Amino acid sequence: MAPSPAQADSILHARWVIPVEGPADVLHHHAVVIRDGAIADILPSEQARQRWHSDDTLELGHHALMPGLVNAHTHAAMSLFRGLADDLPLMTWLEEHIWPAEGRWISEQFVHEGTRFACAEMIRGGTTCFADMYFFPEAIARAAHEAGLRATIFSPLLDFPTPMAQGPDDYLRLAIAAHDNWRHEALIQVGFGPHAPYTVSDEPLARVVTYAEELDAPVMMHIHETAFEVSSAEQASGERPLARLARLGLLSPRLLAVHATQLTDAEIALLADHGVTVVHCPESNLKLASGFCRTADLQAGKVNLALGTDGAASNNDLDMFGEMRTAALLAKGVAGRADALPAADIIEMATLGGARALGLDQQVGSLAPGKQADMIAVDLGELETQPVYNPLAQLVYACARHQVSHTWVAGQCLMANRRLTTLNEERVRRDARAWGEKIAGASDDT
Amino acid sequence: MAPSPAQADSILHARWVIPVEGPADVLHHHAVVIRDGAIADILPSEQARQRWHSDDTLELGHHALMPGLVNAHTHAAMSLFRGLADDLPLMTWLEEHIWPAEGRWISEQFVHEGTRFACAEMIRGGTTCFADMYFFPEAIARAAHEAGLRATIFSPLLDFPTPMAQGPDDYLRLAIAAHDNWRHEALIQVGFGPHAPYTVSDEPLARVVTYAEELDAPVMMHIHETAFEVSSAEQASGERPLARLARLGLLSPRLLAVHATQLTDAEIALLADHGVTVVHCPESNLKLASGFCRTADLQAGKVNLALGTDGAASNNDLDMFGEMRTAALLAKGVAGRADALPAADIIEMATLGGARALGLDQQVGSLAPGKQADMIAVDLGELETQPVYNPLAQLVYACARHQVSHTWVAGQCLMANRRLTTLNEERVRRDARAWGEKIAGASDDT
Repeated sequence: MAPSPAQADSILHARWVIPVEGPADVLHHHAVVIRDGAIADILPSEQARQRWHSDDTLELGHHALMPGLVNAHTHAAMSLFRGLADDLPLMTWLEEHIWPAEGRWISEQFVHEGTRFACAEMIRGGTTCFADMYFFPEAIARAAHEAGLRATIFSPLLDFPTPMAQGPDDYLRLAIAAHDNWRHEALIQVGFGPHAPYTVSDEPLARVVTYAEELDAPVMMHIHETAFEVSSAEQASGERPLARLARLGLLSPRLLAVHATQLTDAEIALLADHGVTVVHCPESNLKLASGFCRTADLQAGKVNLALGTDGAASNNDLDMFGEMRTAALLAKGVAGRADALPAADIIEMATLGGARALGLDQQVGSLAPGKQADMIAVDLGELETQPVYNPLAQLVYACARHQVSHTWVAGQCLMANRRLTTLNEERVRRDARAWGEKIAGASDDT
Repeated sequence: MAPSPAQADSILHARWVIPVEGPADVLHHHAVVIRDGAIADILPSEQARQRWHSDDTLELGHHALMPGLVNAHTHAAMSLFRGLADDLPLMTWLEEHIWPAEGRWISEQFVHEGTRFACAEMIRGGTTCFADMYFFPEAIARAAHEAGLRATIFSPLLDFPTPMAQGPDDYLRLAIAAHDNWRHEALIQVGFGPHAPYTVSDEPLARVVTYAEELDAPVMMHIHETAFEVSSAEQASGERPLARLARLGLLSPRLLAVHATQLTDAEIALLADHGVTVVHCPESNLKLASGFCRTADLQAGKVNLALGTDGAASNNDLDMFGEMRTAALLAKGVAGRADALPAADIIEMATLGGARALGLDQQVGSLAPGKQADMIAVDLGELETQPVYNPLAQLVYACARHQVSHTWVAGQCLMANRRLTTLNEERVRRDARAWGEKIAGASDDT
């Protein structure tokens, strides 16, 4: 006599399951079984129908089911500035547009509503976890919590005052307070976000090293973003920024080095030796003409790679599917090898690589029994993704984010058949439009 | 007494009209009036309601109305091979995958059904005109004609036999026959497509020069696609391919030089002097690691630039919105200047630049009274394209092709609210899936 089936919260049958780690790149006609927010089983659909029972089953007949995407670097609230200023030299863009706009508009309310708007875009685009670095970390955390997204919030640190804080002591105090306030919330993690080598001096950086270790928190920093950053540091001090950070003890598996477009072979080895993650933001690097990240060389050097969109003011979207494609294409162009970073590696960078960077790879980043059910279903049945010879290639090279039909975080469905469940899409869009009108109207005044 | 309004076939009221050439980059709350397939008037919506009448009016309240996109280089039927082989070195990809697949599968029927499938994707993505280069030009023309798309078909020419022809005489005979057969069809133009400098010898190239002039037909050729192409020609003959083509008289405003990733300053001047168009295919160049096209330098040197996706087997889509974004981003990265090729210039490259390349700029490529009504409406109301500070930036940097709501060619609506009118989407998709299954099944056999 067959044993009676076990009870599951949901069972998802998919044409293709992309586990990202495990014995196969692609499983055909498999089911993912969810119980208590976690993955209880992954097995052929036929077997799942025998062994598991649930009142909530979903047939994803033309879909790939894969881990949710991890956007490892963004400034989510800046989505409200999307398209405010484009096609400008970096310093003109920053000094004449972005900094004045931030000075005038940034507030707790701006960050909360801007981040909520960004969360809606991320859920719609298949992102289940994001690493944010922006002012007012508590407002960011509130928005992520409302949305039901997993988030690591890197509380900013600068030498100079902003609408958020007066100086290093103040920034660090707020970072630690945010860390404490949110430490019991399973989906939210707070880390330290010293902005860049040229905006944070040694003393506060040394304190970041100590606090991050004490609190077991990750650290994110823009590092070697442009040639100018590196050469001006060398001229001023004789030391390249990475050497300085190494001297200060900042290089460790806790560190996410964002951009890293200027790396020598020795620096790649240094990052590998210390277990630092490089967060690659190819579209931002291109748009701001920052330089090219040597992703194929970093991969060969065993450096963990994660993928980020950067903020929507310099990208101009939070589209991780687009970012995967750009990363895949650009890696080949930069390496001069058409076999550099194949589709499977790009998908890993956008999922497990990001989870590793954030210290979350035991919980998320791949589909495996015991891991949290952070997943997306992607409908490959559209005309633009036919025929399907290889679902990995379709996901990276042909698929668009609107083909994401469902998004789950810890088993909670945040989007079902393109309808958001935690956020009110219409309200979020209306808020964004209202901010846009206010900001544009004010610029017309001046 | 006000004069009674004139009769129009349709009146389209749009939140933004992007004419591409004329006094302003963006017109707000304007109407485009269509009569007999052409643009009869462009004027503020309020005035249009007084001066024009039509039973067919459309209110595009959140949309940008712009010229249809011109995909200036593709091999449309290869869409049936989309994702068949990726992430491989160029010669492995060609010799072990693409050429064997072509040898086994290419036929009139394959090209007809494959091109029809590609036409559906192009209409859905806002392309109204495409420049194709593939076997069996009459089959391509039939598919474009069924779809209602504008097309220039470059009939192939190679030194060696393929399923289409035995050798140069045969290819040229078929090209001239196709040109004659379709010369009375307003939307279809047939030109000459000598494949590349390394696959076509001097004698047939000289004949192309003569025939193209006699027939007033354009010529398309892959030129300086890779460093290897250029260096091996130099080694074999002491002459760079462009110098050879110049010597043979091929450089003229009729010529579309596709790829052109390897150009000296002198070669840029040579292209400019002869009025040659460069067709930029950034995603194909990246994916095949071919090299970087110096688009900002070409623009500064007054070379006409057009934009192409290349075939879906090396891209892997026919997405001109994606291609615009990649072109805009990559131009900045390659030039090292964040102000290189701003959004307006990219839109021109993807519309009027392509029309110029094909000798069609008196008819299409911009919105102006007297021009053919080849247009698209793009819905910028989606969350991902909010707020709208600048519709040009949104179109290039944030918009996705599924936001195209309507596509018109010569005033005929080929897609209305995402529904195709000339092609049966379901049938086209089913055909593509069936081809995919047949081709994949056969590879499994071997």
